[in-house]
Amino acid sequence: MIHVGVNGYGTIGKRVATAVDAQSDMAVVGVSKRSLDHEAAAAVDRGFKMYTPETGAENATGGCDVPVTGNTEALIAESDVVVDARPAGVGAANASTYTSTDTAVVFQGGEESTVAPASFCARANYEETVGQRSTRVVSCNTTGLARLLSPLNEQFGVESVDCTLIRRGGDPTQSDRGPINDILPDPVTVPSHHASDLQTVLPTIEVMSKGVTVPATLMHLHSLTVRLERAPRTDAVRTCLGDERRVELITSGCGQDSCADLRESAHDRGRPRGDVWENCVWSDSLSVDGRSLSLLQAIHQQADVIPENIDAIRALATDTDAETSRQLTNDALGVGLTSSVA
Amino acid sequence: MIHVGVNGYGTIGKRVATAVDAQSDMAVVGVSKRSLDHEAAAAVDRGFKMYTPETGAENATGGCDVPVTGNTEALIAESDVVVDARPAGVGAANASTYTSTDTAVVFQGGEESTVAPASFCARANYEETVGQRSTRVVSCNTTGLARLLSPLNEQFGVESVDCTLIRRGGDPTQSDRGPINDILPDPVTVPSHHASDLQTVLPTIEVMSKGVTVPATLMHLHSLTVRLERAPRTDAVRTCLGDERRVELITSGCGQDSCADLRESAHDRGRPRGDVWENCVWSDSLSVDGRSLSLLQAIHQQADVIPENIDAIRALATDTDAETSRQLTNDALGVGLTSSVA
Repeated sequence: MIHVGVNGYGTIGKRVATAVDAQSDMAVVGVSKRSLDHEAAAAVDRGFKMYTPETGAENATGGCDVPVTGNTEALIAESDVVVDARPAGVGAANASTYTSTDTAVVFQGGEESTVAPASFCARANYEETVGQRSTRVVSCNTTGLARLLSPLNEQFGVESVDCTLIRRGGDPTQSDRGPINDILPDPVTVPSHHASDLQTVLPTIEVMSKGVTVPATLMHLHSLTVRLERAPRTDAVRTCLGDERRVELITSGCGQDSCADLRESAHDRGRPRGDVWENCVWSDSLSVDGRSLSLLQAIHQQADVIPENIDAIRALATDTDAETSRQLTNDALGVGLTSSVA
Repeated sequence: MIHVGVNGYGTIGKRVATAVDAQSDMAVVGVSKRSLDHEAAAAVDRGFKMYTPETGAENATGGCDVPVTGNTEALIAESDVVVDARPAGVGAANASTYTSTDTAVVFQGGEESTVAPASFCARANYEETVGQRSTRVVSCNTTGLARLLSPLNEQFGVESVDCTLIRRGGDPTQSDRGPINDILPDPVTVPSHHASDLQTVLPTIEVMSKGVTVPATLMHLHSLTVRLERAPRTDAVRTCLGDERRVELITSGCGQDSCADLRESAHDRGRPRGDVWENCVWSDSLSVDGRSLSLLQAIHQQADVIPENIDAIRALATDTDAETSRQLTNDALGVGLTSSVA
């Protein structure tokens, strides 16, 4: 049994805790949160022990009366592996704490790649994290790209990829973020950071990435053109991607023609928080011209890295191989949008 | 056991089916849907039998292979009570079908009040539906107003109410609805239809209602000033509303300062589809000046009428009294935002 602590209980942390709780080979030691708000109250009501930084919790008073078990240092000491889901940049500041207690740690993609000896995507480079004491799960967009390109690279050889990432402005509760009525080059510089980030897990692929942010909160959308070494047949690409449980081919005739429809499907199937863990590739968008493959895929920014965090925990704490871990994670969560009815 | 059919499986129908399924004294006979799309596939995967109109199902081909049990007429004939959740106006067209099979029916607020001998809000006028063969659950906004005003009327006497309804533009999947960057008088005429609709369940209260639609999909928000017969103390109002399980007093210090925060709480607590069944009244917004009470409340347009539909089924099919039915419904669903952890 792997004893897992979750340090940071926001968008990613709360989902990692729920997912760890669903694994038969893992147990949640507790979660750490600064603000004892409605999210902390719900966590305790779910049965998670609540820890807070030694500096004390903000909003400890007010309407929410949340029982606290101990401080974050205690949580780290009691855990075999800690998933650090604190805000971007804060994780690196915690690094020494993990080292001092010799606790293995999974950082998130908001940190610089130098925060850990390896960056991680379960389908691309699981093995590079085995035997390490820390790793970094790449960001939601990079995870979505790596998951798609890894099987294509194995079967057809990927020479280069050109992707435009149409990015959501913020998550649903981030009401204070923009844009509210604009389309922003984000960043204005080209390539965006996604190109170099993707190369931390798939170093051999040449990448051009451009980011544009729009007024949306549901999902990101990727417009991709992939240059392959061997010209594929379109149905061979469909078969290649269809074999991936973390890639969902969205077929026509089912009315899933928008990001909102994809989230609605997840809600209807009883997914926790209506999460879509899979890359959603619109099957009708697959277009092959010689060695060029073009497609559109949607990525749920709050959810696609969650299975990756679970696999990263196993890579750090056990000798489970990549395929076995991915299958354990997929089966425990119900990955595969058409196979996950509550 | 009450055998319930659900005719129409959209925003309301799918939620009613899930809620009926959670009641120990009710069973879902099946659901009827025109389009055999991803929502129909999820319904069948959940274990609901699928029926379609005799005119045949749209999109019966395509990616979704959904097994059909029979036609809608068969579903109606096999049901003790049918909840008609077809689009506004279509329900009335079905009325003769229900009469011919002597099946009791619950219509939705999109229909004219003349569609049934009674309109229904479980807290306001449950008794008027007892002994009838059909009733009409008033719309989400009217339900939210009636739930709030009924206890206030009993305790302090409500003379009149002036409400501005800041309405969401559409539900999350209605990507083709506006407004996208505007604030619309909706309708331009004053009072809006909500005033007369509220009087179908609370006829003694004088109402002024004005509607304004904004670019949002999460919830409606009501700005209310209620003229009472007896000047209350603010804490007496809090106690009065706090005693209502379908009214949630949102206290400060818990970080629930937006509609998105309220939906996030529902997601964190494992609510199906992240639904908020309760009126959410911001406690800090309660303001009393003599006999005038002002407040702000949020209403989840997809969810607040669901417990009312369950109570309406009992009112039509049994001799259960209002308070008993409300408690059975509340307990089965876990109504009360702080008492519904999955």
